[in-house]
Amino acid sequence: MMTANRNVSIRAKQIVSYDIALCSTTAETIARIVDHSSGHRLIFVDEGLPPQHRDEFLNQLTAAGVTFTVRSVPGDEENKTLPNVLDVVKAMNECGVKRRSAPSIVIGGGVALDIVGFAASLYRRGVPYIRVPTTLLSMVDVSVAAKTAANHLGYRNRIGTFHPASLTLVNMDYLGTLPRRHVANGSGEIFKLAVIKDAKLFDLIEAYSFSLAKSPDDIFEREKEAIGEIIFRSIAGMAEELEPNLWEGNLERVVDYGHTFSPLVEMTHIAELLHGEAVALDCLFSAIISYHRGTLSRRALERLFQVAYRLDLPVFHHGFQNIALLIDAIADSAIHRDGKQNAPLMSGIGSAYFVNDIDETEIMRAAEAMKRIHEQRLHEKTDLVGGV
Amino acid sequence: MMTANRNVSIRAKQIVSYDIALCSTTAETIARIVDHSSGHRLIFVDEGLPPQHRDEFLNQLTAAGVTFTVRSVPGDEENKTLPNVLDVVKAMNECGVKRRSAPSIVIGGGVALDIVGFAASLYRRGVPYIRVPTTLLSMVDVSVAAKTAANHLGYRNRIGTFHPASLTLVNMDYLGTLPRRHVANGSGEIFKLAVIKDAKLFDLIEAYSFSLAKSPDDIFEREKEAIGEIIFRSIAGMAEELEPNLWEGNLERVVDYGHTFSPLVEMTHIAELLHGEAVALDCLFSAIISYHRGTLSRRALERLFQVAYRLDLPVFHHGFQNIALLIDAIADSAIHRDGKQNAPLMSGIGSAYFVNDIDETEIMRAAEAMKRIHEQRLHEKTDLVGGV
Ligand SMILES: NC(=O)c1ccc[n+]([C@@H]2O[C@H](COP(=O)([O-])OP(=O)(O)OC[C@H]3O[C@@H](n4cnc5c(N)ncnc54)[C@H](O)[C@@H]3O)[C@@H](O)[C@H]2O)c1
Ligand SMILES: NC(=O)c1ccc[n+]([C@@H]2O[C@H](COP(=O)([O-])OP(=O)(O)OC[C@H]3O[C@@H](n4cnc5c(N)ncnc54)[C@H](O)[C@@H]3O)[C@@H](O)[C@H]2O)c1
Repeated sequence: MMTANRNVSIRAKQIVSYDIALCSTTAETIARIVDHSSGHRLIFVDEGLPPQHRDEFLNQLTAAGVTFTVRSVPGDEENKTLPNVLDVVKAMNECGVKRRSAPSIVIGGGVALDIVGFAASLYRRGVPYIRVPTTLLSMVDVSVAAKTAANHLGYRNRIGTFHPASLTLVNMDYLGTLPRRHVANGSGEIFKLAVIKDAKLFDLIEAYSFSLAKSPDDIFEREKEAIGEIIFRSIAGMAEELEPNLWEGNLERVVDYGHTFSPLVEMTHIAELLHGEAVALDCLFSAIISYHRGTLSRRALERLFQVAYRLDLPVFHHGFQNIALLIDAIADSAIHRDGKQNAPLMSGIGSAYFVNDIDETEIMRAAEAMKRIHEQRLHEKTDLVGGV
Repeated sequence: MMTANRNVSIRAKQIVSYDIALCSTTAETIARIVDHSSGHRLIFVDEGLPPQHRDEFLNQLTAAGVTFTVRSVPGDEENKTLPNVLDVVKAMNECGVKRRSAPSIVIGGGVALDIVGFAASLYRRGVPYIRVPTTLLSMVDVSVAAKTAANHLGYRNRIGTFHPASLTLVNMDYLGTLPRRHVANGSGEIFKLAVIKDAKLFDLIEAYSFSLAKSPDDIFEREKEAIGEIIFRSIAGMAEELEPNLWEGNLERVVDYGHTFSPLVEMTHIAELLHGEAVALDCLFSAIISYHRGTLSRRALERLFQVAYRLDLPVFHHGFQNIALLIDAIADSAIHRDGKQNAPLMSGIGSAYFVNDIDETEIMRAAEAMKRIHEQRLHEKTDLVGGV
């Protein structure tokens, strides 16, 4: 602290550290929780989590001697609202959740995790919590995240905080019950990371895209291992980007790839598009812009579309034909990036650069190209991106 | 970042720095703002701030070439609610407040500052803001604080965040219009800091207590200087306690003195008690406990009560006779301190120690003593604390 000339300067340093661990079984997950902290737990279970997962988790906790109180939280994007966050705060208050010990636990998809994380950050200005993600998207993306949020005023994540879980435990077994569309949705974020940052990861998802798109029950043991590697590589890649920029002091973030147009398109079509789907569409749209700018080869663009198809990701949506919406979307993203577009584009698979001059003409041209590619596909043309 | 054995560890460091500056005139305040940052401003003005202050501030901003949009926020404790925080969020969204540049400005009392600070922490997960406190309490306490909050579920500050203003500008001139009760209220927090941490500050407020209690218009120039010193010394003292413990990693905080019983008593009697008044009552109550434990002399206890009288602070309130309420209050504070009372007591004026064993008997005895002192005062006894 410095006091001089009727001026007081405060300078404080905060260290934030947390772990994400892959577990092979529920027993291992419970063991990690018991190892991490003790005390009576408040446990929030995603309402959409199939009962067998819920029961197994709670039964094994009881078997491990842990006492707890259970509450439920909703899944699904339209439930990521402040009133649901406040319900969690209320439960914390009723159960007398302490400020530092006996972290609450949340098990579920990204929506449940974000809701409980947001509440945990607000209640008494922050109590610790543990995350157990049960969807592919929440395993590869939310698991690493320091961010919490709720949708508000018609915008995605318009309010939120920075408040990572002290521990996140990832167990692939939960994927067995996940609907195929939600598996694809999760692969959207893996796709994003691969195309913008990790060419090796792209090779992997290209090779195993058919397996990734299958319901995990149908997957051979050998492929399961590859998918485990894909998940771990995604987590590590996300973490690498996040760690030096946890509070987003730097607003040029490669992980914003796929997040320039998608937030507003997703909210506008919330009944039609899932988060990972909107992100994948934006990835493809931005790849077309990169291609038009001459920084991405035709072959690479073709590979992107082929992999997206095989992952069961959408490659066309009318939201990406609405020019006015796309212009609003990039303008709102620019406010979020302090007035600059800071839009990541691709300079080849696995590498990025930033631009600030995407304009209406370019957006229109990319929208037309996206439509043409869609039509080529409908006519079962093999050369998808020909003539775009 | 470390990845080993299917485990990813994230470790990130955040530096938070901010300034609190004393300004002598509105012109100086505006100059500091212009010096600090530029751009179109969103300005939140406390509805209870007398119009002359509001007009002077806005006119001088205009004269300095600053463009802005003005919104109002309410003052007074019962308005420190989440809906009012969300109104500020909405205004920020409507005005397209950016993420980093052109910080919003709030001018007003502690309630207005807390509401806008909370909103600024939530909107897009945090935008910067500048505080201009206009009450004595907000000048000496909120000015330094990293905390924001709203009252919720019947509890004070039950939800909130850590999000200090990047700049706080303190100008004593605003005190000219402050009702005497609110001057006394502010001196409650000065009183707390003095008795628990700063014997020299206690000497100062003892010497100038009559001036402090006056409306500032009646104060001679010479006394004004002393009061300026008291305010600056309070700010510096608060900052000294805060800086090494900004996120409250350490839950043994001397500044929690006066905040063990008061939060629940204040909320229970919100129509009767102001924050600084409740804090002062708790300071006296805790001083009696210290006296009963033999760690505070009778002479020191007498001085505390005399100074509190002269500052126009309440020294008795029926809330501090309600044993069940006081027991609930210390239990809730213990939850906030992770299960331990961590209650600061006095070992002489200006120094503290912590205890964890305050029980019902002790609370009853202190309540009786507080009542007896009150009665002695009513009978104009000079030896107030005699026989307690
Ligand atoms: N905090 C961050 O930084 C961050 C990062 C990425 C995404 N997110 C958020 O994550 C959210 C999306 O998460 P999501 O895709 O998991 O959606 P979701 O949480 O809505 O889950 C999808 C559906 O699957 C159900 N479900 C959960 N586990 C299941 C299982 N094992 N088997 C069957 N059904 C299951 C859920 O109840 C829900 O109905 C978005 O709101 C997004 O903003 C946050
Ligand atoms: N953030 C923190 O760490 C922190 C620290 C201490 C206190 N606080 C909070 O501060 C709040 C109390 O602040 P307060 O005592 O300023 O109350 P307040 O904000 O309610 O202000 C008191 C009244 O004075 C009016 N007012 C403001 N400036 C005035 C002026 N110059 N002249 C005349 N009237 C004026 C207000 O409109 C209000 O009616 C509490 O909610 C408390 O929790 C926060």
